[in-house]
Amino acid sequence: MPSALVEKALQGDKLSLTRLLTEVEAETPKGIQALDLIYSHTGKAHKIGITGAPGSGKSTLVAALVKELRRLPDKPRIAVIAVDPTSPFSGGALLGDRVRMLQIQHDPDVFIRSMATRGALGGLSDRTEAFTQVFDAAGYDYVLIETVGAGQSEIDVVNLAHTVIVVDTPDMGDDIQAIKAGILEIADLLVVNKADRPGVEGSVRNLQNMVNAGHGKDLNLHHHRFLTEKNQEKLEHIDAEDHWFPPVLKTVATENIGIAELAEKILEHGKFLKGHGLWELKTELAMHEIVARNLRLGLYRRWLEDADKTKLQAIMNDLLEKRISPNQAVKALMAL
Amino acid sequence: MPSALVEKALQGDKLSLTRLLTEVEAETPKGIQALDLIYSHTGKAHKIGITGAPGSGKSTLVAALVKELRRLPDKPRIAVIAVDPTSPFSGGALLGDRVRMLQIQHDPDVFIRSMATRGALGGLSDRTEAFTQVFDAAGYDYVLIETVGAGQSEIDVVNLAHTVIVVDTPDMGDDIQAIKAGILEIADLLVVNKADRPGVEGSVRNLQNMVNAGHGKDLNLHHHRFLTEKNQEKLEHIDAEDHWFPPVLKTVATENIGIAELAEKILEHGKFLKGHGLWELKTELAMHEIVARNLRLGLYRRWLEDADKTKLQAIMNDLLEKRISPNQAVKALMAL
Repeated sequence: MPSALVEKALQGDKLSLTRLLTEVEAETPKGIQALDLIYSHTGKAHKIGITGAPGSGKSTLVAALVKELRRLPDKPRIAVIAVDPTSPFSGGALLGDRVRMLQIQHDPDVFIRSMATRGALGGLSDRTEAFTQVFDAAGYDYVLIETVGAGQSEIDVVNLAHTVIVVDTPDMGDDIQAIKAGILEIADLLVVNKADRPGVEGSVRNLQNMVNAGHGKDLNLHHHRFLTEKNQEKLEHIDAEDHWFPPVLKTVATENIGIAELAEKILEHGKFLKGHGLWELKTELAMHEIVARNLRLGLYRRWLEDADKTKLQAIMNDLLEKRISPNQAVKALMAL
Repeated sequence: MPSALVEKALQGDKLSLTRLLTEVEAETPKGIQALDLIYSHTGKAHKIGITGAPGSGKSTLVAALVKELRRLPDKPRIAVIAVDPTSPFSGGALLGDRVRMLQIQHDPDVFIRSMATRGALGGLSDRTEAFTQVFDAAGYDYVLIETVGAGQSEIDVVNLAHTVIVVDTPDMGDDIQAIKAGILEIADLLVVNKADRPGVEGSVRNLQNMVNAGHGKDLNLHHHRFLTEKNQEKLEHIDAEDHWFPPVLKTVATENIGIAELAEKILEHGKFLKGHGLWELKTELAMHEIVARNLRLGLYRRWLEDADKTKLQAIMNDLLEKRISPNQAVKALMAL
């Protein structure tokens, strides 16, 4: 039986939605229970991860994209989750950026929420996914997740999205390029923003080469141990026709140039996924990821509770005194 | 009984050491067995994590620091692990940098090894720790671990070090500053490199303020569930006297300015840790981290083997059909 807070949030009350997100982020009993209640209402939203180095203008791009998507015939409702301490959405912005953000913040069908990257309980991608579920259940058609594109935790976050957009600029140094190699592997759309700057064609060529050199998106087959049979079969039968070639687009977000084309490509990618049975597969892969991670944590906690504390101490002493190695300690602990 | 490869590596044969590291990195049976064999020989090396954004000149700083440490009266042997795709040590460098690196690469008592950040099995920090153990056992007195300072995986890596150095420069933008907030929390020494550039005093003040504002290094108490009683007691009795205030140093690594002071502070920090019983505590905390992570993985694998596949499928179907939520699925899977 749904709580009053959940019911009001699902009906579109923004204040209730804000309060619900706070409970969910803090993983309070109410927040955890709410996630159980709303889950059957999820499954419609298109999750879009947008990632790029600081200074790539991705927040401005997100703002422009939100405005563009809002102009679609069905007037979709849009949520933005800013998982980035440097994002203007999180308050880390210059004044000029903030003004630009305010334009979309005043749209009643746009909801913007920043998320702390550190300090909270649970994994970052778990909390982002939980937020996405809340927005999805509350009837938001697109959930845009903005992350700074560096490090495994950011990759984990955007990996749960249906569509991943990587934002680059003409004047990023080689250093940044190298960092991006990891994130490029998971890109569905590549954007060279600030395309009015010198060197744009070189950047486009560079990205195109990196994309062509790669073997496309890796679905991390070996990590998935217990998908439903239907999706296991789909995974095993992915062929060349199911391969999406990430296009490289040019934008000038501050001038709204190239944004319509970007929105179009996002819709096209969504249709592609649905047409090839990949939307459902991706949805289950994301869910599998979350479930497997929490299962690992749960199994560990249960083990901790059940383990014989005296024997446990003896093993840790043996390890510290170097009578056994870390690997041998793990084996001994598992045998407790 | 030690294998010939391990024996030769421990005796200082560089070719054997190289081959051993390759086995360890790939987690071959030989590599895993080698880690068991060498573990009793570890425990002497001072592990130093050096992290900073691309362009901060941290590789040049590492090279200068290696030369400085080599001049110490006891002529210590030094290993460098470059966990950074943009590091000159990993081949991602401009020619000028490479020449500088060659100077230390030709020193017979210096060993430099880069580590792939992606694609290999196991966690990045597990593999870095494994490398550190090999170097430690082979008699290297200092192990310098260079990582690019962004993202949780880098934080995980340097968190295993005794001494963490964060490198900044006067001209880093605010964006980079914000990203660094996470890494600053774990810094023992702060370095403003390229200190001959304008704005250096502002950077020093800035870092000093960030350090003063923080409550110092967080030892992540709540993550540690089964330390030895001795170190549990130490953890519970850490007081103000055990608190190290991270100093902010200025260097110009290309000119060798400030490097002697940096080396001195590193030695001082090592002595501080030993004098306060923190060296042993940190060593066990790092080991605990590795053991706990592999234990979680091992428990999960065992669960996967033992679980009833039919029931497992039914639960995943219920999840996909939204009859149960992810949390409910985790609970049901744990009850299998």
